[in-house]
Amino acid sequence: MASVLSHTNFPDSVGLVTPQRSTFAQGLDLACGRRLPEFELVYECYGELNSDASNAVLICHALSGHHHAAGYHQEDDKKPGWWDDCIGPGKPIDTNHFYVVSLNNIGGCHGSTGPRSINPATGEVYGPDFPPLRARDWVTSQAMLADLLGISCWAAVIGGSLGGMQAMRWSLEYPQRVRHCIVIAAAMKLSAQNIAFNEIARQAIFSDPEFRQGQYLRDNVIPRQGLSIARMVGHITYLSDDAMADKFGRDLHSGSFAQGAEEQLEFQVESYLRHQGSVFSESFDANTYILMTRALDYFDLAREYGDDPVAAFSHATAAFLVISFSTDWRFSPGRSREIVAALIAARRPVSYAEIEADQGHDAFLLPIPRYCDVFTAYMNRVRSGD
Amino acid sequence: MASVLSHTNFPDSVGLVTPQRSTFAQGLDLACGRRLPEFELVYECYGELNSDASNAVLICHALSGHHHAAGYHQEDDKKPGWWDDCIGPGKPIDTNHFYVVSLNNIGGCHGSTGPRSINPATGEVYGPDFPPLRARDWVTSQAMLADLLGISCWAAVIGGSLGGMQAMRWSLEYPQRVRHCIVIAAAMKLSAQNIAFNEIARQAIFSDPEFRQGQYLRDNVIPRQGLSIARMVGHITYLSDDAMADKFGRDLHSGSFAQGAEEQLEFQVESYLRHQGSVFSESFDANTYILMTRALDYFDLAREYGDDPVAAFSHATAAFLVISFSTDWRFSPGRSREIVAALIAARRPVSYAEIEADQGHDAFLLPIPRYCDVFTAYMNRVRSGD
Repeated sequence: MASVLSHTNFPDSVGLVTPQRSTFAQGLDLACGRRLPEFELVYECYGELNSDASNAVLICHALSGHHHAAGYHQEDDKKPGWWDDCIGPGKPIDTNHFYVVSLNNIGGCHGSTGPRSINPATGEVYGPDFPPLRARDWVTSQAMLADLLGISCWAAVIGGSLGGMQAMRWSLEYPQRVRHCIVIAAAMKLSAQNIAFNEIARQAIFSDPEFRQGQYLRDNVIPRQGLSIARMVGHITYLSDDAMADKFGRDLHSGSFAQGAEEQLEFQVESYLRHQGSVFSESFDANTYILMTRALDYFDLAREYGDDPVAAFSHATAAFLVISFSTDWRFSPGRSREIVAALIAARRPVSYAEIEADQGHDAFLLPIPRYCDVFTAYMNRVRSGD
Repeated sequence: MASVLSHTNFPDSVGLVTPQRSTFAQGLDLACGRRLPEFELVYECYGELNSDASNAVLICHALSGHHHAAGYHQEDDKKPGWWDDCIGPGKPIDTNHFYVVSLNNIGGCHGSTGPRSINPATGEVYGPDFPPLRARDWVTSQAMLADLLGISCWAAVIGGSLGGMQAMRWSLEYPQRVRHCIVIAAAMKLSAQNIAFNEIARQAIFSDPEFRQGQYLRDNVIPRQGLSIARMVGHITYLSDDAMADKFGRDLHSGSFAQGAEEQLEFQVESYLRHQGSVFSESFDANTYILMTRALDYFDLAREYGDDPVAAFSHATAAFLVISFSTDWRFSPGRSREIVAALIAARRPVSYAEIEADQGHDAFLLPIPRYCDVFTAYMNRVRSGD
């Protein structure tokens, strides 16, 4: 089942990996009341599943993530998977010990069934007709993948940001199937400001004339401008003010401040954001972006528990690790402390680390020494069956 | 010269006011190297200029501001001018004692010469060909207005946000013409994050097909969507996270969270921001918005003083009041403390107040008691000729 082919040339990495693909013909009843008649999941596995399937770890991805979390697809890939700093031999999620499963969620645009897939009911691309999803739909589909892989209980379910929300939802929906829940740079629900940023991103996409009410694929166009602006908005919220100051300051990309120099000048930060937006707009699907941001907005861990997070977490049986980063203003340490306070009040075992880091929300993707140390130490505990 | 007509029906206000208009046929050499051949300024005056013209106060407006800072234009106006909470009889800028001048800056879209005006060289609307402006151009044009009004020295130059930047620039460009400089919720230069938000706003406008490279007026259209998104971005940065949470929380405007309810749901914060964006897009000029945000981005108080704010302020002779607000994250208290530190090092008299306020950057427009107390006390000092 392990898809590691070679890591001769990638000593610190899981090496070359090949995505797997599974079809779930039984379909899925969604939270919105609609039904996905059948669906496919694309995923990658790193490491070896042990004989009693007790060393399996699930990685849940965030807004723009996907299944390719570690290793390389080809020898000449310039970059490894998105969380290669944390997954691999000797890394916090050590593939010498754990069997790691990382999937692209339904609704995504990297191979799993989503808005770019064919709707069997019409024979055409779903596009904007793809049903709205909630985090619980992802958790349910992930549980179906676990069944397929013979994993009755995850050693740990792990995620950052929106991934952390899925991890928390796992702990409530399938308490017997999660031994440890690792929630990084997340929150129990979005604030009005969080929602406002997502709404601006959506409005930017909606108002791009190439969006065509979501039917852009049918017309063979892409809402590049809208998706690019959406990504620029997101990007600002991933970086701290200080991180942007350190990285760009007020440096110019072109032009001059000199008086009398009428030429337009451009700051490095502008050029960088436009480039990031442009690259993203070529690779990501606008309908997926809308769907994902809505799932984020709607997520509210405790809503169905009388808005009481303590009541919610009293349904969990897992042990928890919660991690936040000092300069993360998308999901600040205060939001993580709310999770921790609820877990303590619900008498759940919880470890909490607030990591000093300049990089804002993005810190969860980076090899910050103290973060890796805390993460590694906790995973050693998971490994020992503690 | 005073334009107060009546305040019988507006006891706490300067009452009914009529904007004035003056033409400056001599034109203006701009920082960009181009020349405005002639220009008009629209302004309002509140209170009475005393015999030695020593009680005049200049109000500098921010990004979307204008000349109508206090009082009412008509008996049935629903709202007074934008800073009516701080300007009027018995208010911090007390019109029983001060003669208050408030103008619409050049480049604006409320009557002063700007992108909507006719370019005398072509006989057509300037539109995107209006020359780029810097804060110093505003200060120069304000000095020309002072000459016209017979004001050789302002008792105080006062501004919030971008207005505070103009006030600081006044203190360096015309040190002999400013007795007191009041700088509220401002900064000596924008951070990379500040610039990034402005750039997103501009990109939203540029990518609206109705923008037509700035020639929308010629085609009799308006880039409503782009301008609306730009305003939404700005609005988030004016409010604190807490203020948005208090005002909107996760309340719904329409729809339901219930599972199985597939209907789209809408949060109050989304509905509010879209409404604000929509109203703004009907009244504000997109070319002005671009011009104003660029002037903000380019502003750097100390650039021509070897990037040394202490060297810059050593040219000032005014006394300073600097005010910041605890939850302002657009121009945080830290940015104001940088101003204060430079003023102290430059041996300038400076008072500083950091006001506890939940409302974020918008706090500078609101009648927060401690803010009004500090402001009033300082203005009493200005009045006494201290």
